[in-house]
Amino acid sequence: MSESSRIFTAALIVIGDEILSGRTHDKNIAQVATWLGAQGIRLAEVRVVSDHTPAIVEAVNALRARNDYLFTTGGIGPTHDDITVDAVAEALGVGVIVHPDARAILEGYYESRGGLNEARLRMARVPEGAELIPNRYTGAPGIRHGNIFLMAGVPQITAGMLDGLSGTLEGGQQLLSETVGCWCQESEVADLLRQTEADFASCQIGSYPFWRDGKSGANFVVRSVDADDLAACVRALARGLEAMDRPAYPGGIE
Amino acid sequence: MSESSRIFTAALIVIGDEILSGRTHDKNIAQVATWLGAQGIRLAEVRVVSDHTPAIVEAVNALRARNDYLFTTGGIGPTHDDITVDAVAEALGVGVIVHPDARAILEGYYESRGGLNEARLRMARVPEGAELIPNRYTGAPGIRHGNIFLMAGVPQITAGMLDGLSGTLEGGQQLLSETVGCWCQESEVADLLRQTEADFASCQIGSYPFWRDGKSGANFVVRSVDADDLAACVRALARGLEAMDRPAYPGGIE
Repeated sequence: MSESSRIFTAALIVIGDEILSGRTHDKNIAQVATWLGAQGIRLAEVRVVSDHTPAIVEAVNALRARNDYLFTTGGIGPTHDDITVDAVAEALGVGVIVHPDARAILEGYYESRGGLNEARLRMARVPEGAELIPNRYTGAPGIRHGNIFLMAGVPQITAGMLDGLSGTLEGGQQLLSETVGCWCQESEVADLLRQTEADFASCQIGSYPFWRDGKSGANFVVRSVDADDLAACVRALARGLEAMDRPAYPGGIE
Repeated sequence: MSESSRIFTAALIVIGDEILSGRTHDKNIAQVATWLGAQGIRLAEVRVVSDHTPAIVEAVNALRARNDYLFTTGGIGPTHDDITVDAVAEALGVGVIVHPDARAILEGYYESRGGLNEARLRMARVPEGAELIPNRYTGAPGIRHGNIFLMAGVPQITAGMLDGLSGTLEGGQQLLSETVGCWCQESEVADLLRQTEADFASCQIGSYPFWRDGKSGANFVVRSVDADDLAACVRALARGLEAMDRPAYPGGIE
Protein backbone atom coordinates (compact mmCIF):
# COMPACT_ATOMS: atom_id res chain seq x y z
CA MET A 1 0.00 0.00 0.00
CA SER A 2 1.49 3.33 -1.01
CA GLU A 3 1.59 6.08 1.57
CA SER A 4 -1.12 8.07 -0.17
CA SER A 5 -3.62 5.19 -0.16
CA ARG A 6 -3.61 4.66 3.57
CA ILE A 7 -6.53 6.18 5.46
CA PHE A 8 -5.79 9.20 7.65
CA THR A 9 -8.16 9.82 10.54
CA ALA A 10 -8.83 12.68 12.90
CA ALA A 11 -10.86 13.09 16.07
CA LEU A 12 -12.53 16.24 17.35
CA ILE A 13 -13.18 17.28 20.93
CA VAL A 14 -15.80 20.00 21.30
CA ILE A 15 -15.19 21.62 24.69
CA GLY A 16 -17.92 23.57 26.38
CA ASP A 17 -20.78 23.50 28.84
CA GLU A 18 -22.75 25.73 26.46
CA ILE A 19 -23.09 22.86 23.97
CA LEU A 20 -23.99 20.32 26.67
CA SER A 21 -26.65 22.64 28.12
CA GLY A 22 -28.38 22.88 24.74
CA ARG A 23 -28.03 26.66 24.78
CA THR A 24 -25.61 26.80 21.85
CA HIS A 25 -26.07 24.65 18.76
CA ASP A 26 -22.71 23.28 17.71
CA LYS A 27 -21.56 24.30 14.25
CA ASN A 28 -17.97 23.12 14.48
CA ILE A 29 -18.56 19.38 14.00
CA ALA A 30 -19.89 19.80 10.46
CA GLN A 31 -17.39 22.56 9.69
CA VAL A 32 -14.34 20.59 10.83
CA ALA A 33 -15.69 17.39 9.20
CA THR A 34 -16.12 19.06 5.83
CA TRP A 35 -12.70 20.73 5.98
CA LEU A 36 -11.02 17.45 6.96
CA GLY A 37 -12.72 15.65 4.08
CA ALA A 38 -11.19 18.13 1.65
CA GLN A 39 -7.74 17.41 3.15
CA GLY A 40 -8.16 13.65 2.59
CA ILE A 41 -8.61 13.06 6.31
CA ARG A 42 -11.65 11.31 7.79
CA LEU A 43 -13.30 12.50 10.95
CA ALA A 44 -13.50 9.20 12.83
CA GLU A 45 -15.02 10.27 16.15
CA VAL A 46 -16.18 13.31 18.10
CA ARG A 47 -16.59 13.89 21.81
CA VAL A 48 -18.35 16.82 23.42
CA VAL A 49 -16.99 17.35 26.94
CA SER A 50 -17.66 19.83 29.72
CA ASP A 51 -15.41 22.65 30.94
CA HIS A 52 -13.88 20.25 33.43
CA THR A 53 -10.17 19.38 33.35
CA PRO A 54 -10.43 15.59 33.95
CA ALA A 55 -13.02 15.25 31.18
CA ILE A 56 -10.75 17.03 28.70
CA VAL A 57 -7.63 15.12 29.77
CA GLU A 58 -9.38 11.76 29.37
CA ALA A 59 -10.68 12.60 25.91
CA VAL A 60 -7.35 14.04 24.70
CA ASN A 61 -5.38 10.99 25.74
CA ALA A 62 -7.90 8.48 24.38
CA LEU A 63 -8.24 10.16 20.99
CA ARG A 64 -4.74 11.43 20.21
CA ALA A 65 -3.28 7.94 20.49
CA ARG A 66 -5.56 6.31 17.95
CA ASN A 67 -5.93 9.02 15.32
CA ASP A 68 -3.47 10.76 13.03
CA TYR A 69 -4.76 14.15 14.16
CA LEU A 70 -6.75 15.53 17.06
CA PHE A 71 -8.61 18.82 16.91
CA THR A 72 -10.27 20.65 19.77
CA THR A 73 -12.66 23.60 19.63
CA GLY A 74 -13.43 25.94 22.50
CA GLY A 75 -11.90 27.06 25.77
CA ILE A 76 -8.89 29.04 24.53
CA GLY A 77 -10.20 32.53 25.36
CA PRO A 78 -9.27 34.95 28.16
CA THR A 79 -11.78 34.06 30.88
CA HIS A 80 -11.73 31.75 33.90
CA ASP A 81 -13.76 29.08 32.10
CA ASP A 82 -11.13 28.76 29.34
CA ILE A 83 -9.10 25.79 30.54
CA THR A 84 -8.23 23.92 27.35
CA VAL A 85 -4.53 24.89 27.28
CA ASP A 86 -3.96 23.76 30.86
CA ALA A 87 -5.92 20.54 30.37
CA VAL A 88 -4.06 19.61 27.18
CA ALA A 89 -0.71 20.37 28.83
CA GLU A 90 -1.73 18.09 31.70
CA ALA A 91 -2.70 15.35 29.25
CA LEU A 92 0.68 15.68 27.52
CA GLY A 93 2.62 15.92 30.77
CA VAL A 94 4.24 19.23 29.82
CA GLY A 95 4.21 22.66 31.38
CA VAL A 96 2.43 25.80 30.21
CA ILE A 97 4.51 28.74 28.98
CA VAL A 98 3.80 32.16 27.49
CA HIS A 99 4.71 31.86 23.81
CA PRO A 100 6.81 34.91 22.86
CA ASP A 101 5.33 35.20 19.35
CA ALA A 102 1.79 34.94 20.71
CA ARG A 103 2.59 37.64 23.24
CA ALA A 104 3.92 39.89 20.47
CA ILE A 105 0.80 39.27 18.33
CA LEU A 106 -1.49 40.14 21.24
CA GLU A 107 0.53 43.25 22.13
CA GLY A 108 0.08 44.47 18.58
CA TYR A 109 -3.61 43.57 18.43
CA TYR A 110 -4.50 45.23 21.75
CA GLU A 111 -2.24 48.29 21.29
CA SER A 112 -5.23 50.29 20.00
CA ARG A 113 -7.75 48.35 22.11
CA GLY A 114 -6.78 49.21 25.69
CA GLY A 115 -3.52 47.32 25.95
CA LEU A 116 -2.54 43.85 27.10
CA ASN A 117 -3.95 42.94 30.52
CA GLU A 118 -3.62 39.74 32.52
CA ALA A 119 -6.73 38.16 31.01
CA ARG A 120 -5.58 38.90 27.46
CA LEU A 121 -2.12 37.55 28.21
CA ARG A 122 -3.79 34.23 29.09
CA MET A 123 -4.35 33.81 25.36
CA ALA A 124 -0.56 33.70 24.80
CA ARG A 125 -0.23 30.64 27.05
CA VAL A 126 0.52 27.35 25.28
CA PRO A 127 1.58 23.84 26.25
CA GLU A 128 5.40 23.80 26.15
CA GLY A 129 6.64 22.83 22.68
CA ALA A 130 3.66 24.27 20.79
CA GLU A 131 3.53 26.31 17.57
CA LEU A 132 0.92 28.93 16.72
CA ILE A 133 -1.98 28.81 14.25
CA PRO A 134 -2.80 32.28 12.87
CA ASN A 135 -6.12 33.93 13.75
CA ARG A 136 -7.02 36.53 11.16
CA TYR A 137 -9.96 37.92 13.11
CA THR A 138 -9.10 38.59 16.75
CA GLY A 139 -5.37 38.17 17.19
CA ALA A 140 -5.39 35.34 19.73
CA PRO A 141 -3.80 32.42 17.87
CA GLY A 142 -4.77 28.77 17.74
CA ILE A 143 -2.20 26.28 18.99
CA ARG A 144 -0.55 23.22 17.45
CA HIS A 145 1.31 20.70 19.57
CA GLY A 146 2.47 17.69 17.56
CA ASN A 147 -0.68 16.11 16.11
CA ILE A 148 -3.02 18.17 18.32
CA PHE A 149 -4.68 21.37 17.09
CA LEU A 150 -6.41 23.70 19.56
CA MET A 151 -8.93 25.91 17.80
CA ALA A 152 -11.35 28.63 18.84
CA GLY A 153 -14.94 27.82 19.75
CA VAL A 154 -16.52 30.68 17.81
CA PRO A 155 -17.22 29.09 14.39
CA GLN A 156 -16.11 32.03 12.24
CA ILE A 157 -12.73 32.17 14.01
CA THR A 158 -12.36 28.40 13.73
CA ALA A 159 -13.08 28.75 10.00
CA GLY A 160 -10.22 31.23 9.61
CA MET A 161 -7.82 28.96 11.49
CA LEU A 162 -8.80 25.94 9.38
CA ASP A 163 -8.38 27.98 6.23
CA GLY A 164 -4.84 28.86 7.32
CA LEU A 165 -4.07 25.15 7.81
CA SER A 166 -5.48 24.06 4.43
CA GLY A 167 -3.03 21.97 2.45
CA THR A 168 -0.48 21.73 5.28
CA LEU A 169 -1.52 18.34 6.73
CA GLU A 170 -0.72 15.00 5.14
CA GLY A 171 -3.87 13.21 4.05
CA GLY A 172 -4.74 10.16 1.99
CA GLN A 173 -7.18 9.62 -0.80
CA GLN A 174 -10.24 11.77 -0.53
CA LEU A 175 -13.44 9.90 0.24
CA LEU A 176 -15.70 10.79 -2.68
CA SER A 177 -19.47 10.78 -2.38
CA GLU A 178 -22.53 11.07 -4.58
CA THR A 179 -26.13 11.27 -3.54
CA VAL A 180 -29.17 9.71 -5.21
CA GLY A 181 -32.58 10.85 -3.99
CA CYS A 182 -35.86 8.97 -4.29
CA TRP A 183 -39.47 9.56 -3.26
CA CYS A 184 -39.91 6.22 -1.54
CA GLN A 185 -39.78 4.63 1.86
CA GLU A 186 -36.28 3.33 2.52
CA SER A 187 -37.87 0.10 3.76
CA GLU A 188 -39.15 -0.58 0.21
CA VAL A 189 -35.68 -0.51 -1.27
CA ALA A 190 -33.61 -1.93 1.59
CA ASP A 191 -32.77 -5.12 -0.33
CA LEU A 192 -31.64 -3.13 -3.35
CA LEU A 193 -29.38 -0.97 -1.17
CA ARG A 194 -27.84 -3.97 0.56
CA GLN A 195 -27.27 -5.86 -2.71
CA THR A 196 -25.85 -2.83 -4.52
CA GLU A 197 -23.40 -2.16 -1.70
CA ALA A 198 -22.36 -5.82 -1.75
CA ASP A 199 -21.75 -5.64 -5.53
CA PHE A 200 -19.25 -2.77 -5.20
CA ALA A 201 -16.65 -3.71 -2.62
CA SER A 202 -15.08 -0.24 -2.38
CA CYS A 203 -18.42 1.51 -1.83
CA GLN A 204 -20.55 2.17 1.23
CA ILE A 205 -24.17 3.28 0.92
CA GLY A 206 -25.86 5.31 3.64
CA SER A 207 -29.65 5.71 3.67
CA TYR A 208 -31.15 8.94 5.07
CA PRO A 209 -34.94 9.12 5.17
CA PHE A 210 -37.04 12.25 5.44
CA TRP A 211 -40.69 13.27 5.36
CA ARG A 212 -41.98 16.31 3.52
CA ASP A 213 -45.53 17.44 2.80
CA GLY A 214 -46.77 14.04 3.97
CA LYS A 215 -44.52 12.17 1.53
CA SER A 216 -41.70 9.76 2.36
CA GLY A 217 -38.36 10.27 0.69
CA ALA A 218 -34.78 9.22 1.19
CA ASN A 219 -31.32 10.24 0.07
CA PHE A 220 -28.84 7.47 -0.56
CA VAL A 221 -25.24 8.59 -0.16
CA VAL A 222 -22.67 6.42 -1.90
CA ARG A 223 -19.06 6.83 -0.71
CA SER A 224 -15.83 5.47 -2.16
CA VAL A 225 -12.21 6.46 -2.65
CA ASP A 226 -12.45 5.10 -6.24
CA ALA A 227 -14.16 7.48 -8.68
CA ASP A 228 -14.93 4.76 -11.25
CA ASP A 229 -16.44 2.41 -8.66
CA LEU A 230 -18.44 5.29 -7.25
CA ALA A 231 -19.91 6.22 -10.64
CA ALA A 232 -20.71 2.57 -11.46
CA CYS A 233 -22.35 2.00 -8.07
CA VAL A 234 -24.47 5.15 -8.42
CA ARG A 235 -25.57 4.05 -11.92
CA ALA A 236 -26.47 0.57 -10.64
CA LEU A 237 -28.45 2.02 -7.76
CA ALA A 238 -30.33 4.45 -10.02
CA ARG A 239 -31.13 1.64 -12.49
CA GLY A 240 -32.36 -0.53 -9.63
CA LEU A 241 -34.66 2.22 -8.36
CA GLU A 242 -36.02 2.88 -11.87
CA ALA A 243 -36.67 -0.85 -12.31
CA MET A 244 -38.91 -0.61 -9.22
CA ASP A 245 -40.75 2.36 -10.78
CA ARG A 246 -39.07 4.71 -8.34
CA PRO A 247 -37.48 7.62 -10.26
CA ALA A 248 -33.95 8.38 -9.05
CA TYR A 249 -32.92 12.00 -8.50
CA PRO A 250 -29.19 12.43 -9.20
CA GLY A 251 -27.63 14.77 -6.64
CA GLY A 252 -30.30 13.90 -4.10
CA ILE A 253 -33.47 15.62 -2.97
CA GLU A 254 -32.74 18.77 -0.97
CA MET B 1 -28.25 14.92 50.89
CA SER B 2 -31.81 14.12 49.97
CA GLU B 3 -32.45 12.00 46.90
CA SER B 4 -33.79 14.94 44.94
CA SER B 5 -30.71 17.05 45.48
CA ARG B 6 -28.27 14.61 43.97
CA ILE B 7 -27.18 15.34 40.41
CA PHE B 8 -28.51 13.04 37.70
CA THR B 9 -26.42 12.77 34.53
CA ALA B 10 -26.97 11.41 31.07
CA ALA B 11 -24.72 10.73 28.11
CA LEU B 12 -25.66 10.80 24.44
CA ILE B 13 -24.20 8.77 21.59
CA VAL B 14 -24.95 10.18 18.14
CA ILE B 15 -24.54 7.30 15.69
CA GLY B 16 -23.95 7.99 12.04
CA ASP B 17 -21.41 8.44 9.28
CA GLU B 18 -23.58 11.26 7.92
CA ILE B 19 -22.68 13.46 10.88
CA LEU B 20 -18.97 12.58 10.74
CA SER B 21 -18.82 13.32 7.00
CA GLY B 22 -20.17 16.82 7.62
CA ARG B 23 -23.07 16.17 5.23
CA THR B 24 -25.74 16.34 7.94
CA HIS B 25 -25.66 18.97 10.68
CA ASP B 26 -26.58 17.32 13.96
CA LYS B 27 -29.67 18.71 15.65
CA ASN B 28 -30.11 16.03 18.28
CA ILE B 29 -27.39 17.16 20.71
CA ALA B 30 -29.11 20.46 21.47
CA GLN B 31 -32.56 18.87 21.38
CA VAL B 32 -31.71 16.06 23.79
CA ALA B 33 -29.71 18.45 26.03
CA THR B 34 -32.62 20.87 26.34
CA TRP B 35 -35.11 18.10 27.03
CA LEU B 36 -32.85 16.51 29.64
CA GLY B 37 -32.42 19.87 31.37
CA ALA B 38 -36.18 20.14 31.77
CA GLN B 39 -36.21 16.67 33.38
CA GLY B 40 -33.60 17.71 35.97
CA ILE B 41 -30.93 15.61 34.24
CA ARG B 42 -27.63 17.03 33.01
CA LEU B 43 -26.11 16.02 29.71
CA ALA B 44 -22.58 15.23 30.88
CA GLU B 45 -20.94 14.02 27.67
CA VAL B 46 -21.63 13.26 24.03
CA ARG B 47 -19.87 11.03 21.55
CA VAL B 48 -20.43 10.95 17.81
CA VAL B 49 -19.45 7.54 16.44
CA SER B 50 -19.48 5.92 13.02
CA ASP B 51 -21.79 3.18 11.74
CA HIS B 52 -19.27 0.61 12.95
CA THR B 53 -20.16 -1.97 15.60
CA PRO B 54 -16.95 -1.82 17.69
CA ALA B 55 -17.17 1.99 17.89
CA ILE B 56 -20.75 1.81 19.18
CA VAL B 57 -20.00 -1.02 21.63
CA GLU B 58 -17.06 0.86 23.14
CA ALA B 59 -19.05 4.04 23.59
CA VAL B 60 -22.10 2.27 25.05
CA ASN B 61 -20.07 0.41 27.64
CA ALA B 62 -17.97 3.43 28.65
CA LEU B 63 -20.93 5.79 29.02
CA ARG B 64 -23.69 3.59 30.48
CA ALA B 65 -21.55 2.68 33.47
CA ARG B 66 -20.83 6.23 34.60
CA ASN B 67 -24.12 8.01 33.90
CA ASP B 68 -27.63 7.56 35.21
CA TYR B 69 -28.98 7.41 31.68
CA LEU B 70 -27.62 6.79 28.21
CA PHE B 71 -29.38 7.95 25.06
CA THR B 72 -28.48 7.06 21.48
CA THR B 73 -29.78 8.63 18.27
CA GLY B 74 -29.61 7.03 14.85
CA GLY B 75 -29.27 3.62 13.29
CA ILE B 76 -32.61 2.04 14.23
CA GLY B 77 -34.19 2.10 10.76
CA PRO B 78 -34.81 -0.69 8.23
CA THR B 79 -31.66 -0.57 6.09
CA HIS B 80 -28.35 -2.43 6.15
CA ASP B 81 -26.54 0.54 7.73
CA ASP B 82 -28.87 0.48 10.77
CA ILE B 83 -26.83 -1.50 13.28
CA THR B 84 -27.56 0.17 16.60
CA VAL B 85 -29.79 -2.60 18.03
CA ASP B 86 -27.23 -5.31 17.29
CA ALA B 87 -24.35 -3.22 18.64
CA VAL B 88 -26.15 -2.36 21.87
CA ALA B 89 -27.15 -6.02 22.35
CA GLU B 90 -23.50 -6.96 21.89
CA ALA B 91 -22.44 -4.33 24.44
CA LEU B 92 -24.99 -5.69 26.93
CA GLY B 93 -24.15 -9.33 26.22
CA VAL B 94 -27.76 -10.19 25.34
CA GLY B 95 -29.41 -11.57 22.23
CA VAL B 96 -31.63 -9.78 19.72
CA ILE B 97 -35.30 -10.78 19.51
CA VAL B 98 -38.35 -9.60 17.58
CA HIS B 99 -40.50 -7.76 20.12
CA PRO B 100 -44.11 -8.97 19.71
CA ASP B 101 -45.65 -5.57 20.46
CA ALA B 102 -43.30 -3.85 18.02
CA ARG B 103 -44.22 -6.40 15.38
CA ALA B 104 -47.91 -5.73 16.00
CA ILE B 105 -47.39 -1.95 15.78
CA LEU B 106 -45.52 -2.29 12.48
CA GLU B 107 -48.13 -4.69 11.05
CA GLY B 108 -50.79 -2.10 11.77
CA TYR B 109 -48.74 0.80 10.43
CA TYR B 110 -47.79 -0.93 7.17
CA GLU B 111 -51.18 -2.59 6.57
CA SER B 112 -52.15 0.26 4.24
CA ARG B 113 -48.57 0.91 3.10
CA GLY B 114 -47.63 -2.27 1.26
CA GLY B 115 -47.40 -4.68 4.20
CA LEU B 116 -44.61 -5.82 6.48
CA ASN B 117 -41.52 -6.99 4.61
CA GLU B 118 -38.20 -8.27 5.91
CA ALA B 119 -36.63 -4.80 6.03
CA ARG B 120 -39.57 -3.33 7.96
CA LEU B 121 -39.56 -6.26 10.38
CA ARG B 122 -35.97 -5.28 11.25
CA MET B 123 -37.49 -2.33 13.10
CA ALA B 124 -39.21 -4.73 15.53
CA ARG B 125 -35.86 -6.19 16.62
CA VAL B 126 -34.71 -5.22 20.13
CA PRO B 127 -32.02 -6.30 22.59
CA GLU B 128 -33.57 -9.05 24.75
CA GLY B 129 -35.27 -7.54 27.81
CA ALA B 130 -36.17 -4.22 26.17
CA GLU B 131 -39.37 -2.18 26.34
CA LEU B 132 -40.71 0.06 23.57
CA ILE B 133 -40.83 3.86 23.32
CA PRO B 134 -43.81 5.04 21.23
CA ASN B 135 -43.21 6.73 17.87
CA ARG B 136 -46.19 8.87 16.94
CA TYR B 137 -44.95 9.59 13.43
CA THR B 138 -43.80 6.46 11.62
CA GLY B 139 -44.72 3.46 13.72
CA ALA B 140 -41.26 2.05 14.33
CA PRO B 141 -40.76 2.42 18.08
CA GLY B 142 -37.76 3.57 20.07
CA ILE B 143 -36.28 1.10 22.52
CA ARG B 144 -35.52 1.22 26.23
CA HIS B 145 -33.26 -1.33 27.88
CA GLY B 146 -32.62 -0.52 31.54
CA ASN B 147 -31.00 2.92 31.60
CA ILE B 148 -30.36 2.94 27.84
CA PHE B 149 -32.72 4.68 25.39
CA LEU B 150 -32.38 4.07 21.66
CA MET B 151 -33.98 6.89 19.68
CA ALA B 152 -34.43 7.69 16.01
CA GLY B 153 -31.90 9.80 14.12
CA VAL B 154 -34.44 12.00 12.32
CA PRO B 155 -34.86 14.94 14.73
CA GLN B 156 -38.65 15.29 14.44
CA ILE B 157 -39.12 11.61 15.30
CA THR B 158 -36.66 11.89 18.18
CA ALA B 159 -38.67 14.87 19.43
CA GLY B 160 -41.85 12.79 19.53
CA MET B 161 -40.12 9.99 21.41
CA LEU B 162 -38.66 12.42 23.96
CA ASP B 163 -42.05 14.02 24.41
CA GLY B 164 -43.52 10.61 25.21
CA LEU B 165 -40.83 10.08 27.87
CA SER B 166 -41.30 13.49 29.52
CA GLY B 167 -41.82 13.21 33.26
CA THR B 168 -41.11 9.47 33.38
CA LEU B 169 -37.41 9.61 34.36
CA GLU B 170 -36.16 10.42 37.83
CA GLY B 171 -34.19 13.63 37.87
CA GLY B 172 -32.71 15.96 40.45
CA GLN B 173 -32.87 19.69 40.89
CA GLN B 174 -33.09 21.53 37.63
CA LEU B 175 -30.00 23.53 36.75
CA LEU B 176 -31.32 27.07 36.37
CA SER B 177 -29.64 29.64 34.18
CA GLU B 178 -29.84 33.32 33.41
CA THR B 179 -27.98 35.26 30.77
CA VAL B 180 -26.53 38.76 31.00
CA GLY B 181 -25.32 40.34 27.77
CA CYS B 182 -22.82 43.15 27.35
CA TRP B 183 -21.25 45.05 24.49
CA CYS B 184 -17.68 44.56 25.62
CA GLN B 185 -14.71 42.33 25.06
CA GLU B 186 -14.78 39.45 27.51
CA SER B 187 -11.09 40.12 28.18
CA GLU B 188 -12.01 43.51 29.70
CA VAL B 189 -14.26 41.94 32.31
CA ALA B 190 -12.49 38.63 32.96
CA ASP B 191 -11.51 39.63 36.51
CA LEU B 192 -15.09 40.61 37.32
CA LEU B 193 -16.38 37.27 36.02
CA ARG B 194 -13.85 35.28 38.01
CA GLN B 195 -14.48 37.25 41.21
CA THR B 196 -18.26 37.11 40.87
CA GLU B 197 -18.19 33.35 40.35
CA ALA B 198 -15.94 32.99 43.41
CA ASP B 199 -18.39 35.06 45.51
CA PHE B 200 -21.31 32.70 44.80
CA ALA B 201 -20.26 29.15 45.54
CA SER B 202 -23.31 27.50 43.97
CA CYS B 203 -22.96 29.42 40.69
CA GLN B 204 -20.92 28.86 37.54
CA ILE B 205 -20.45 31.62 34.97
CA GLY B 206 -19.77 30.84 31.32
CA SER B 207 -18.54 33.56 28.97
CA TYR B 208 -19.54 33.41 25.29
CA PRO B 209 -18.12 36.12 23.06
CA PHE B 210 -19.43 37.16 19.66
CA TRP B 211 -18.77 39.80 17.01
CA ARG B 212 -21.51 41.66 15.20
CA ASP B 213 -21.32 44.64 12.85
CA GLY B 214 -17.70 45.08 13.86
CA LYS B 215 -18.54 45.28 17.58
CA SER B 216 -17.43 42.90 20.31
CA GLY B 217 -20.06 41.51 22.64
CA ALA B 218 -20.43 38.64 25.05
CA ASN B 219 -23.17 36.76 26.82
CA PHE B 220 -22.47 35.64 30.36
CA VAL B 221 -24.51 32.60 31.38
CA VAL B 222 -24.92 32.09 35.12
CA ARG B 223 -26.00 28.61 36.21
CA SER B 224 -27.08 27.34 39.61
CA VAL B 225 -29.54 24.90 41.17
CA ASP B 226 -30.39 27.63 43.75
CA ALA B 227 -32.79 30.29 42.44
CA ASP B 228 -31.88 32.86 45.13
CA ASP B 229 -28.14 32.46 44.58
CA LEU B 230 -28.69 32.69 40.86
CA ALA B 231 -30.63 35.95 41.13
CA ALA B 232 -28.08 37.44 43.53
CA CYS B 233 -25.16 36.44 41.32
CA VAL B 234 -26.82 37.93 38.24
CA ARG B 235 -27.48 41.19 40.13
CA ALA B 236 -23.87 41.34 41.33
CA LEU B 237 -22.57 40.72 37.81
CA ALA B 238 -24.83 43.37 36.30
CA ARG B 239 -23.81 45.90 38.97
CA GLY B 240 -20.15 45.10 38.32
CA LEU B 241 -20.56 45.67 34.60
CA GLU B 242 -22.43 48.95 35.15
CA ALA B 243 -19.66 50.09 37.51
CA MET B 244 -17.26 49.65 34.58
CA ASP B 245 -19.56 51.74 32.35
CA ARG B 246 -20.64 48.63 30.50
CA PRO B 247 -24.44 48.47 30.39
CA ALA B 248 -25.74 45.00 31.20
CA TYR B 249 -28.52 43.50 29.07
CA PRO B 250 -30.72 41.18 31.16
CA GLY B 251 -31.65 38.09 29.18
CA GLY B 252 -28.56 38.44 27.03
CA ILE B 253 -27.94 39.84 23.57
CA GLU B 254 -29.45 37.67 20.85
